[in-house]
Amino acid sequence: MKSFSFRYGETKLYFGPNVISKLKEHLDGMESVTIVTGRKSAEKSGALQDVKKILEESGIDYQVFSKVIPNPTVDIAGGVAEFARKNCSDCLIGIGGGSVIDVSKVSSIIAVNGGRAEDYLNGMKIKRKIKLIAVNLTHGTGSEIDRFAVLTKGKEKVGISARYPDVSFDDPRYMLSLPREQSIYTSIDAFFHSYEAVTARAANPLVKTLSMESARIIGENLGEDSQNLEKKYNLLYASMLAGIALDISPAHIVHAIEHALSGIKQDLAHGCGLAMVGARSIYWIHKHSKESADILERLTGKKVKSPSDAEKTFRDFLDEVGFDEKLSDYGFGRDDFSEIKEMVFGRLSYSISRANFKLTEDMLIDILEKSL
Amino acid sequence: MKSFSFRYGETKLYFGPNVISKLKEHLDGMESVTIVTGRKSAEKSGALQDVKKILEESGIDYQVFSKVIPNPTVDIAGGVAEFARKNCSDCLIGIGGGSVIDVSKVSSIIAVNGGRAEDYLNGMKIKRKIKLIAVNLTHGTGSEIDRFAVLTKGKEKVGISARYPDVSFDDPRYMLSLPREQSIYTSIDAFFHSYEAVTARAANPLVKTLSMESARIIGENLGEDSQNLEKKYNLLYASMLAGIALDISPAHIVHAIEHALSGIKQDLAHGCGLAMVGARSIYWIHKHSKESADILERLTGKKVKSPSDAEKTFRDFLDEVGFDEKLSDYGFGRDDFSEIKEMVFGRLSYSISRANFKLTEDMLIDILEKSL
Repeated sequence: MKSFSFRYGETKLYFGPNVISKLKEHLDGMESVTIVTGRKSAEKSGALQDVKKILEESGIDYQVFSKVIPNPTVDIAGGVAEFARKNCSDCLIGIGGGSVIDVSKVSSIIAVNGGRAEDYLNGMKIKRKIKLIAVNLTHGTGSEIDRFAVLTKGKEKVGISARYPDVSFDDPRYMLSLPREQSIYTSIDAFFHSYEAVTARAANPLVKTLSMESARIIGENLGEDSQNLEKKYNLLYASMLAGIALDISPAHIVHAIEHALSGIKQDLAHGCGLAMVGARSIYWIHKHSKESADILERLTGKKVKSPSDAEKTFRDFLDEVGFDEKLSDYGFGRDDFSEIKEMVFGRLSYSISRANFKLTEDMLIDILEKSL
Repeated sequence: MKSFSFRYGETKLYFGPNVISKLKEHLDGMESVTIVTGRKSAEKSGALQDVKKILEESGIDYQVFSKVIPNPTVDIAGGVAEFARKNCSDCLIGIGGGSVIDVSKVSSIIAVNGGRAEDYLNGMKIKRKIKLIAVNLTHGTGSEIDRFAVLTKGKEKVGISARYPDVSFDDPRYMLSLPREQSIYTSIDAFFHSYEAVTARAANPLVKTLSMESARIIGENLGEDSQNLEKKYNLLYASMLAGIALDISPAHIVHAIEHALSGIKQDLAHGCGLAMVGARSIYWIHKHSKESADILERLTGKKVKSPSDAEKTFRDFLDEVGFDEKLSDYGFGRDDFSEIKEMVFGRLSYSISRANFKLTEDMLIDILEKSL
């Protein structure tokens, strides 16, 4: 398993086992660092201990903000910024999955520009930012290599083009402690980054190259036995490729619907929400995109012809990897449809407009019905 | 044919028909620009006129240095730097293939750091550089998206890690005027960037993803009818991918041998030299790399088993695309072998050491013999 590095966007990304040792090359001139984490995974994965050790060896003060929750709110981003400002931090190191890295992105902006997270969600201009280092703990987010952040305000989940991390670490050792369920969720997230990127209006050959390869690798590596280092390396590589694809060609209807769902039920894991509504969304996307057949074939090895074929192929794939949840398991029912509709066609309309077809209300209701 | 842009390394790259119009977004604060070109292709392609028009519309002074030759010398790089300095240029715009872009890279360094090109070939540290914009005119160099420059001093050709362009334009319209012979040479150059990158010690999954896709596209698009915009778009895309692969995992023995050849006969086109010695080089590389079979299969669609198979498959490919030159056509004979040997195992040893096997003198002589 080779370790390597390259620069994409504004991020220098290190990939492979033990790449965290390169962190010390990026600490020049720092005096104080704020480490941002969720409640458990930073420690459980071993990443927090590795980062602390390197900071201590480099004689750099650090404070830990460990209260980021999944589907993080604008208040948390504000809280981290305030915490970093109080500690005069030169740098944020976000250790976690998408939630932690997204919060860290927005906090690194607020900490020096002022304002509140919602100002940036509403388009406030970003003038400066403090250094941001991301230590990625999931093989799904892509946030370590893209410029996006998604935050929650009340029931609204909104994505913005925030910033790239300056430096990111994709070390597959840290994914070994991911529970199997989370491994599935997060790889499904990566798959939908690719699937939506390549079926969006903004798709281009580079997006296709990266998405197809990502889907192939997920198909070959996600399954019963994916809890070993080599599989994690491969799934993480696939997720990173999908992150670049997404950065160039952002996601559309599946992510938009999921953002509405997890805006309403904030304990819903993002990848789980995508998987639940994904199969029927694929039915509609497939009708309008010739790339859909190609990427499903890469994922599953199966030739896909009709939209119904596409839906069934993806449902079979979910079965095979051991995913069998549905909206009703999370308490969603028909009563929620109008609220979801309002969110998708309201605040999230920027996102559905990226698809190469017009999602109608009837289509959305059909997707939700068939995902209950 | 979609146009798109992304940032890799330190380069913002624009890809697709008419992307040159984005040049005006990168001229802020400039007063004087030096345009660097070869003798003819900048004008013949239409790129020079496009660039001049945009500079004029933006009210920016420019001077044109139009004397870069293929296999350019250190003196030319020094000359361009002197020319730019005299004109107080804020920026170099290199319009050409690898020779022009490579010269522009080194000149942009000399212009503000002083010294001579050979100092940098010998490892002198680069402290500053002026802005560099590359307008690429071939679908082979990769120089628009990598950090390398190759210059000639006497009979020596040496590659260095110089710098990335700040901004690059890959506009396939400019490749329509490439003579068919040059189209073949330059695509073979792109293929060997991929082939050598993926069979080098530094190869990694990202290099493989990019190289395999590049080879597939070259195989599908290079041929009798490749002189139209769509084919040019595809071949240029393949060349760009190979450029990134090369940047991460530099070329080794085929490029090293070719650099010796075109150091001796400076009218030899780089891609032509690669093609002449490439087939037999593949025989030896194939023995030591399991990736060789994969990439040849992507290029040709044929399963390749033995080293002899690999050599024959590549010779057949050259036949099909209409390449049939050999070393003796350029006046090379056995008399030259010792000089080539001296160069490859001397000044170019840094390059052959990147292969994942040790090239011996016997192997080199065998490659040259079978390429006569």
